[in-house]
Amino acid sequence: MTDLPDFELYGFWRTSATYRVRVALNLKGLTAHEQVIDLDANEQLGAGFLAINPLGAIPALIVKGQAPLTQSTAILEFLDETHPAPPLLPADPHGRARVRSIAAMLAGDTHPLITPRVRKYLQTKGGFDDAAIKGWMTHWFGTGLAAVEKRLASEAATGSFCHGDEVTIADICLGSITVMARINKLALPPLPTIDGIMARCEALEAFAKADPLKQVGAPKG
Amino acid sequence: MTDLPDFELYGFWRTSATYRVRVALNLKGLTAHEQVIDLDANEQLGAGFLAINPLGAIPALIVKGQAPLTQSTAILEFLDETHPAPPLLPADPHGRARVRSIAAMLAGDTHPLITPRVRKYLQTKGGFDDAAIKGWMTHWFGTGLAAVEKRLASEAATGSFCHGDEVTIADICLGSITVMARINKLALPPLPTIDGIMARCEALEAFAKADPLKQVGAPKG
Repeated sequence: MTDLPDFELYGFWRTSATYRVRVALNLKGLTAHEQVIDLDANEQLGAGFLAINPLGAIPALIVKGQAPLTQSTAILEFLDETHPAPPLLPADPHGRARVRSIAAMLAGDTHPLITPRVRKYLQTKGGFDDAAIKGWMTHWFGTGLAAVEKRLASEAATGSFCHGDEVTIADICLGSITVMARINKLALPPLPTIDGIMARCEALEAFAKADPLKQVGAPKG
Repeated sequence: MTDLPDFELYGFWRTSATYRVRVALNLKGLTAHEQVIDLDANEQLGAGFLAINPLGAIPALIVKGQAPLTQSTAILEFLDETHPAPPLLPADPHGRARVRSIAAMLAGDTHPLITPRVRKYLQTKGGFDDAAIKGWMTHWFGTGLAAVEKRLASEAATGSFCHGDEVTIADICLGSITVMARINKLALPPLPTIDGIMARCEALEAFAKADPLKQVGAPKG
């Protein structure tokens, strides 16, 4: 009997959204054969990948014989619905809403502002130089993470992780932003609650293995 | 017996995110007492509202005695979990993933780029004048909607609505962007599939009643 992977994952080492899917797969004990789509070489827009996902978007998770699943937050919900253990959302509706809200502050309010296509627009049509791009990224990462810090520090539902003492989708999305902030060496405001939660996350193999710098295609050293 | 509203909704006439919650409440047959938080007067950052939602974010939906629910996509999922009829997501996991993915392309990839806080940054720190702001909005609405059009036009799961023949979260998010494009008089690429779906949505009272221009505080005429 061979150990065939459960999924094909089309991704790239440094993207936040691919990181989220990797962590969720690891937490669920699922395996994926990862296909590198090199964004630096615009492979996401090449004929080869467009035949797989006409939208040219990564990550794309493929269950054999099915249309590709896209958008990391939709993929996390899919994995949680189809592989319920361990759960990535709490059981009660108010708790689920809080976790999804924190996740949306990160994957929704924060991440879309600093994607390559946005930076490219600002450079080519907005006259932003390298310093202005760094300022843009620092501002939106800092603002977004500060808002999440304020919530986590003040809300009683926060535990050793974003919501209680179990890892949820909120922690996965938080990790996807803090890891990118680190790779981009962005100066952030003090985030003591987030720092504590992330230290506990990164002590887990599921998060540690998903580190962008450990993936195929990442810069060495 | 009095008809007390089911919820308090803190919102503003013209925001996409408040629109989404209004449509979902209408579809579920739920009522909310809507409290206007005037973004033009920065009321979302005033002491009165911060006492209700320390994050200063609208929409906020309050179930009596509970912490405010925030982030429109999390609120839609909450309403669907707590008031299942009519469902806003299909029953099968692949269908649910497709609906959430389309919703994320709109509420996640597209909408965050054109929020007031982003436009303000571009004006004050990026040197964008009115024409450049209009160009920015036109670009991201057009790009986002064109990608969704491509999906809807090519995927077999599209029906009279985004997914089959029942309204889902994807249609609500689609409406929230197309309505804003219309209010802002943005020139968009041809979107025949989207136009058809939106005509069918706006023929429903739940969508028609949620029109931003029909809300308290909207400009007349």
